[in-house]
Amino acid sequence: MPQEIDILVSEVGPRDGLQSIKRTMPTEAKLHWIKALASSGLREIEVGSFVSPRLLPQMADCGMLVRESNKIEGLTVLALVPNLKGAENAVAAGARKLTMPPSASRAHSLNNIGMTPEEAIEEVRHVCAFRDSLPSEKRPDVEASISTAFGCTLEGKVSEDWVIEIAGLLAKAGADSIGLSDTTGYANPAQIKRMFRRLRSEIGVEKMGGAHLHNTRGQGLANVVAALEVDVTTFDSSLGGLGGCPYAPGASGNIVTEDLVFMLEAMGLRTGVDIDALIAAREVLLRGLPNEVIYGNIPDVGLPKGFTYASGRSVT
Amino acid sequence: MPQEIDILVSEVGPRDGLQSIKRTMPTEAKLHWIKALASSGLREIEVGSFVSPRLLPQMADCGMLVRESNKIEGLTVLALVPNLKGAENAVAAGARKLTMPPSASRAHSLNNIGMTPEEAIEEVRHVCAFRDSLPSEKRPDVEASISTAFGCTLEGKVSEDWVIEIAGLLAKAGADSIGLSDTTGYANPAQIKRMFRRLRSEIGVEKMGGAHLHNTRGQGLANVVAALEVDVTTFDSSLGGLGGCPYAPGASGNIVTEDLVFMLEAMGLRTGVDIDALIAAREVLLRGLPNEVIYGNIPDVGLPKGFTYASGRSVT
Repeated sequence: MPQEIDILVSEVGPRDGLQSIKRTMPTEAKLHWIKALASSGLREIEVGSFVSPRLLPQMADCGMLVRESNKIEGLTVLALVPNLKGAENAVAAGARKLTMPPSASRAHSLNNIGMTPEEAIEEVRHVCAFRDSLPSEKRPDVEASISTAFGCTLEGKVSEDWVIEIAGLLAKAGADSIGLSDTTGYANPAQIKRMFRRLRSEIGVEKMGGAHLHNTRGQGLANVVAALEVDVTTFDSSLGGLGGCPYAPGASGNIVTEDLVFMLEAMGLRTGVDIDALIAAREVLLRGLPNEVIYGNIPDVGLPKGFTYASGRSVT
Repeated sequence: MPQEIDILVSEVGPRDGLQSIKRTMPTEAKLHWIKALASSGLREIEVGSFVSPRLLPQMADCGMLVRESNKIEGLTVLALVPNLKGAENAVAAGARKLTMPPSASRAHSLNNIGMTPEEAIEEVRHVCAFRDSLPSEKRPDVEASISTAFGCTLEGKVSEDWVIEIAGLLAKAGADSIGLSDTTGYANPAQIKRMFRRLRSEIGVEKMGGAHLHNTRGQGLANVVAALEVDVTTFDSSLGGLGGCPYAPGASGNIVTEDLVFMLEAMGLRTGVDIDALIAAREVLLRGLPNEVIYGNIPDVGLPKGFTYASGRSVT
């Protein structure tokens, strides 16, 4: 029986990390990496994105990855779908959880998924209707995570009222859970607390999604602490902070899974993840992407002397 | 009249940063750097350490630095003193605030200052008696910051009860304020909240000192957020994270002043510090220490579009 956990760490490296770099990792190497990630104890992995291979050739093997990853016991396999067509392809491949990225910033939404925010909400409605048309054993969970929820590199400030309004509309459209994404690394801890509190009061605790945070300005784990203060229990992160930040040579893109898991476990919050196994998974990642720059402090510095996991397990 | 502030950012680069690297920065260059730091709006700078120049030749000019820095209007000039002799030298140079580093870990205390923790507390008592013997216009503030308060690379876990007991003894010994130092980068946010809460209940709000945090394991700003939750209002940091971490090529030593100020201001907490001026001070630092590796995300990535300081001042 799997260990009980307090916080779900949702690994997004195979999707968010790999789509941020130019090289394409071979399918076989991706699968090795996904298996290594799962064997560290990660319960949920976003394996890819069902988008046009013209736009993101790195993601062309997403169907195969879903099919193969589904064979890993106890793993929730997540796939990003920007629209109904993507959702149909994902379900055909056997995906049981879909994540959709409507964006609060109009400029970013048009740029990223070629739709206005309102059209993106409609698309979530179509995907939810499609979900409901399926026999129950094939019905995927539909998660929506609002991109640029804390600011946008194109528009600057994004109205917080508008973000919360979108969350309410997504809930009405049928999304199973709704999270907030700091796509641009603009969020600060005060804003994180305020917005997740408002999100909960808008959509209720049953539909509360997670926090997708980037470390662009070094605020990633600080934002996690703020989110924990308002009882957020799911965090996206990426092994080695894969993908980096194009503007900051020393900065990871997504928050680094290794450092996140260390922080949570040190705080007494069980993740079910083994840090040494995560560090071993870095080698598997680098075998598939030789010489890629990856990030993380814990892999370089090691665990504190006398460290114990939240479960009470000691490592020294 | 200086702007009111919510949080005091105490710059420790000229002491903690410079003592962590092998090269010695020329006195003239240090002074240029200290002036650049002060002109960014920093209210307090730890300019050096009154230790034997045999042990730390990088700090041999501390007397001169105190004398010259005292001429900067509105600046609190802080000097580290390990013992009574250092305090006497510091006061002779005109220092008006002293910081002492008793350590909770017995092994670290013997290693670092050649005294047991009990002897280090006695030394604080001697320094406070010396302070009280001075005419009031020469009397310095005596701050004590308990090193290895969150764990030790030599001893591993450090008893939290013992740390709090030390704080109580330091208060009785006459220290004006007592803070906690995560010398080793071991602290986690849950521990930070718990320990600063206990510290306040032990010594009272009048003697509450600040948090001295290191970013060794990437937890620096996360720990700041936790400390803010329990109303800590003073944080040490170092421009460019100068000094780095010997075990982590990509990790700063002290938390990075630039990223700390950005986070606080974004959260609506006034520091009185201008981020562009901090970034300009990096150039002054590097003129004194050519090619030194320094850290920080904000200097590489820049402020978010539409950023406003806590005071309401906009930058775009």
